[in-house]
Amino acid sequence: MNRFSLSLVILIVAVFGIKAQGKQDIEKRIDEILARLTLEEKVAMCHAQSKFSSPGVPRLGIPEIWMSDGPHGVRGEINWDNWGYAGWTNDSITAFPALTCLAATFNPDLSYQYGVAVGEEARYRKKDILLGPGVNIYRTPLNGRNFEYMGEDPKLASVMVVPYVKGVQSNGVAACVKHYVLNNQEHWRGHINVEVSDRALHEIYLPAFKAAVQQAGVWSIMGAYNQFRGQHTTHNKMLMNDILKGDWGFDGVVVSDWGSAHDTKEAALYGLDIEMGSWTNGLTSSIDLAYDNYYLAKPFLKLLKEGEIEEAVLNDKVRRILRLMLRTNMDPARKFGCANNEAHSAVARKVAADGIVLLKNENQFFPLNADKKMTIAVIGENATRSLTVGGGSSELKAKYEISPLDGIKSRFSNATVLYSMGYASGPSAYGRVIPSSLDADSLVNAAVKVASEADLVLYVGGLNKNHHQDCEGDDRKQFKLPFGQDELISKILAANTNTGIVLVSGNAVEMPWLSDIQGLIQCWYNGSEAGNALADILSGDVTPSGKLPFSYPVKLKDNAAHYYGESSYPGDSINQYYKEDILVGYRWHDTKKIKPAFAFGYGLSYTSFDISNIKSDKKVYTSDDTIKIGCTVTNSGKTKGAEVVQIYIGKTKSKIKRALKELKGFKKIYLKAGEYENVEMEIPVEALKFYDENIHDWNLEKGSYTIYVGNSSDNIIYKQKININ
Amino acid sequence: MNRFSLSLVILIVAVFGIKAQGKQDIEKRIDEILARLTLEEKVAMCHAQSKFSSPGVPRLGIPEIWMSDGPHGVRGEINWDNWGYAGWTNDSITAFPALTCLAATFNPDLSYQYGVAVGEEARYRKKDILLGPGVNIYRTPLNGRNFEYMGEDPKLASVMVVPYVKGVQSNGVAACVKHYVLNNQEHWRGHINVEVSDRALHEIYLPAFKAAVQQAGVWSIMGAYNQFRGQHTTHNKMLMNDILKGDWGFDGVVVSDWGSAHDTKEAALYGLDIEMGSWTNGLTSSIDLAYDNYYLAKPFLKLLKEGEIEEAVLNDKVRRILRLMLRTNMDPARKFGCANNEAHSAVARKVAADGIVLLKNENQFFPLNADKKMTIAVIGENATRSLTVGGGSSELKAKYEISPLDGIKSRFSNATVLYSMGYASGPSAYGRVIPSSLDADSLVNAAVKVASEADLVLYVGGLNKNHHQDCEGDDRKQFKLPFGQDELISKILAANTNTGIVLVSGNAVEMPWLSDIQGLIQCWYNGSEAGNALADILSGDVTPSGKLPFSYPVKLKDNAAHYYGESSYPGDSINQYYKEDILVGYRWHDTKKIKPAFAFGYGLSYTSFDISNIKSDKKVYTSDDTIKIGCTVTNSGKTKGAEVVQIYIGKTKSKIKRALKELKGFKKIYLKAGEYENVEMEIPVEALKFYDENIHDWNLEKGSYTIYVGNSSDNIIYKQKININ
Repeated sequence: MNRFSLSLVILIVAVFGIKAQGKQDIEKRIDEILARLTLEEKVAMCHAQSKFSSPGVPRLGIPEIWMSDGPHGVRGEINWDNWGYAGWTNDSITAFPALTCLAATFNPDLSYQYGVAVGEEARYRKKDILLGPGVNIYRTPLNGRNFEYMGEDPKLASVMVVPYVKGVQSNGVAACVKHYVLNNQEHWRGHINVEVSDRALHEIYLPAFKAAVQQAGVWSIMGAYNQFRGQHTTHNKMLMNDILKGDWGFDGVVVSDWGSAHDTKEAALYGLDIEMGSWTNGLTSSIDLAYDNYYLAKPFLKLLKEGEIEEAVLNDKVRRILRLMLRTNMDPARKFGCANNEAHSAVARKVAADGIVLLKNENQFFPLNADKKMTIAVIGENATRSLTVGGGSSELKAKYEISPLDGIKSRFSNATVLYSMGYASGPSAYGRVIPSSLDADSLVNAAVKVASEADLVLYVGGLNKNHHQDCEGDDRKQFKLPFGQDELISKILAANTNTGIVLVSGNAVEMPWLSDIQGLIQCWYNGSEAGNALADILSGDVTPSGKLPFSYPVKLKDNAAHYYGESSYPGDSINQYYKEDILVGYRWHDTKKIKPAFAFGYGLSYTSFDISNIKSDKKVYTSDDTIKIGCTVTNSGKTKGAEVVQIYIGKTKSKIKRALKELKGFKKIYLKAGEYENVEMEIPVEALKFYDENIHDWNLEKGSYTIYVGNSSDNIIYKQKININ
Repeated sequence: MNRFSLSLVILIVAVFGIKAQGKQDIEKRIDEILARLTLEEKVAMCHAQSKFSSPGVPRLGIPEIWMSDGPHGVRGEINWDNWGYAGWTNDSITAFPALTCLAATFNPDLSYQYGVAVGEEARYRKKDILLGPGVNIYRTPLNGRNFEYMGEDPKLASVMVVPYVKGVQSNGVAACVKHYVLNNQEHWRGHINVEVSDRALHEIYLPAFKAAVQQAGVWSIMGAYNQFRGQHTTHNKMLMNDILKGDWGFDGVVVSDWGSAHDTKEAALYGLDIEMGSWTNGLTSSIDLAYDNYYLAKPFLKLLKEGEIEEAVLNDKVRRILRLMLRTNMDPARKFGCANNEAHSAVARKVAADGIVLLKNENQFFPLNADKKMTIAVIGENATRSLTVGGGSSELKAKYEISPLDGIKSRFSNATVLYSMGYASGPSAYGRVIPSSLDADSLVNAAVKVASEADLVLYVGGLNKNHHQDCEGDDRKQFKLPFGQDELISKILAANTNTGIVLVSGNAVEMPWLSDIQGLIQCWYNGSEAGNALADILSGDVTPSGKLPFSYPVKLKDNAAHYYGESSYPGDSINQYYKEDILVGYRWHDTKKIKPAFAFGYGLSYTSFDISNIKSDKKVYTSDDTIKIGCTVTNSGKTKGAEVVQIYIGKTKSKIKRALKELKGFKKIYLKAGEYENVEMEIPVEALKFYDENIHDWNLEKGSYTIYVGNSSDNIIYKQKININ
């Protein structure tokens, strides 16, 4: 061995020889590596080399970073430098339920299992960063991307995002919480400037991100497309430097959304670490050179060399990137991952079944008796349409997908199941062809005929993943159901009143037929096990226990964002003003006394629960205290099930603007028939703070508060006054 | 955590939790994993899923196996299911010198450094198997693929292959020694049936493979395209079952060459473990299904299910595949690899400079004085043509490639360097365009003009990597230089007698101009550092020390394979007969007293060496003894350099057919001017055995042997008789 290979060995040992251990250890190794890197190598690490990877430093064995779209599964392999699928055959995966469904479970343990499973699949697919979860707040039911998020409440989203992130990262795969922040609509997302108060920002839109950073220790975060106060969020001084990396102490990597960077100096100075997906004015047709023209590529290098930007700025970015690597693809203790196994299918099915929400159930229409010989008419395109395909970047190449019709046929084998499409929405992304002879009228007529011949009708409709539905890139154009479904449903009801509706969507819709139907199930985009999970609920194998993670307004104008007109949503194409301020979702409905069709936290069961012995440990607390609230939950019905105890707290006679109440804690209790459990929940008094714009910090208003305990935001069964001194 | 995730954790721990340690440990883990696999999963592991990968078992986290062509570097990324390059920009690597050059170094330490470096690049590129090295014996100078192999002598190839394999595998990347066996020509390689004696098979063609298996412990081996005794080598009972996996105890994986499998039963029963690259009659246009139609896919599964083939046969294959995985991509202690670093460039340059062979040096034409102001005419296409491009599967996407002209210009900065192309061979694989105005005559005229204006001419020609040159897929069509180079050279000589020739090739060529030139350098395909290494030699910065790894016959008929006419080479398209038997290369020239242009082991230096005090430790040995031969090597010249002491042994008055002598040991000694070193070399008496076809085993003939010591097969400076009792 001569000096060449000896120096090689020394280098490799220096860079990789020590097993990743503690935080200090990692920081020391970052120092060692950083000292070896050239300016050019460091700049290269700050931007993409392909659609989904950023370069390493080959000479030192520093690996590349490979990313994949999430958050519901690992996306199919994409070509090096265009958006076409690469045509690989090893990239079919488990499609997990959409995050709206996960939020609807109100079960953080399931969120952890989901995170572990999707992280295992990402790891098996050799991905270092999974681009999810999404925790943008549900502000309007028109937002095309709500299905990827965790609802309208910052507390719910915060509690649910933390275990997801921990689960993913337990595999040595970085989660990437997105889209930071205020990307609450898809329309004009690339440039719309959001004007929102500090208070709404901190109280409504930031908490889930903060929880991901501070409680889950997330390793990366994605900047958003939109602007905030005149500066793009992806390189926004206040959001990135002051809040995320300053106040919150985030030590991970800020990744741009694909094409969300717009300026070299801002990107350099205001917190962007890795720039992805930019279109730099087509300055060259060569792939290599195109990436060289990224804002954080040659233009960045030039400013560094000219001394316009200090090298310390670059070093901070590279430190963060190396830190992420040492936590992922440079951690020799990283697990191997796995994919498409029974355990993952089981997690997908469990989350789906636990997240489906029973909204209406006249005369115990549900569950359907699977032992019975009967004729079931299944009507509606969503009973058979692939709903893992489409929707934008979250589109998946599912190894398999059990449709609602598949699931129903398989579980209700004693029944005669008739299917009629009812309506046709057009081809999905994978080019599903609608026979041209099936015009709208003939589809309706066929459906009505089938309905009239059946003992009962299950209408499986809703939205889908096409453009202007639940899909990235733009918003819905209407609140009501598309494709003439309302008319179709009334005709079905005219033919057969014994009709239940299964809505598949990621958003609330208008329901003009609500009072006429027997049953209503809110079914999300539930991935590979969608049909099985639906059949679990329909048959009663699983008792519904999902709770709505967002409010269903009766009409669009009842939603806070829409109440204030176009300047609030969607804006004037330049600016928009969040005029509802902190009164988002149920905060609005509660406070303004506008009754929703279905309230946040609402969801029925096949069994019944009593929540009794509710009491707080004290009546008077100080600012450092923790409020302990105990109760006994009893399954008083005839079948096993689960109930979500929800605790809201509101300030009585506040000196400032307040929502009537805010969710401060919840717990999902699984009980057999007749079983009971004593529950204790803890809420630190600190959680009652509001964001005080005068002091630019959280502040505690002393005085009287009301605790509200219930199983829905609009079904409060217990109220109690407490005092904070 | 519920039972799903718990069982998940238990499984992962069971499969991956234990760090790979000893052999027993690995075998135990194979047992554990094997017991969990379904029949379908096991069959899937036995064939490709794409051009260069075979599937894992996603549900258990068993990874895929990713392979890359070698052996001179890691090939660019290929599309999933066609031979086009994938257009990635992260797959440029270090191009190392061709294996002919590595063999010419006669330095096993350099082979280890080469193996480590190319293995590091494979690991960085996430490859689990590097498809190399090649150790097919150089039988004819027409073989298009000789440049990928290690010459004509089984001892030299054996000594050189072992450290290469160990070096690659030290990175947790499997080497794949190829092509097993008798793939000694490209013409008709897909079907030609080789008839060769057991003796030649064991004494000439198998030893390097045996050394790779038994001394290097290689983890995979590649079956060849051709047939042997009527059965394809890739599933040949005698070669695979009896010899490789039987006698030699090979515990690794047999990979087919791409498309070398031809029959399900033979592939199943006669040793093929992973089938790659088959074209199964275009039975389907779907990629997935195409791979399902591989011989070791559905047809294999069918025979297993019908009981035609026992599951134990399948289990043996999967055991081998899992063993390879536990040694590579399932070894958590695997290193990270690196690429394109200075150390790798240094290894490439050192091997290249050490392997370049000085063949003629009239009046000390070389080295050229780099301090001198002079005009150098560099003539010949190979001075500028990319020679990492082309050649078939060993083609590389070099990060950089220093051409001979680049190297010369850079080192001889005091000289005026004129360049003229001289001849044009047509486009290379990457579509180099030859200006149409440059017809052959005008190129010659321009070259002659440049030659006449210069103080000296360096002609840089030879072969290239185009079809019918040094290129996979077919053989050369002629022994003489192509593209009118002989005529060009005579015209150059007429214009300027002060001409030296640099031949870039992987094969011997006819040299009608040999007596008229001043100097001759055999320069191989030397990769990224080709030009720098050549300049090292031309300038005298490095003293030439390469030795020919194969004989250069004066005319083609002087080569043993060609002596016997077409039935010996290339055969009649059905069969060919290796009529020269064991008399391959120098064994032929020596024994038949046919003087070659340059002999095996030949190579000049700028300095001179004395080999003195040569003696064996004894005169009489028994069969268990080791013969120790000592000598003193002295650098008696004026510059540092290296000499290769070569020990040949021949049987005197043998009862059987024998070569006059056979290489039994060699050692390369690096000495400064005036330095000396005492050398001792050990040759076990066992190495004198011949393969006795009567007993189907190696046998030792007793009696008198002659030891020949020299610095070339045709420059023996010491002979000594010994006796084996």
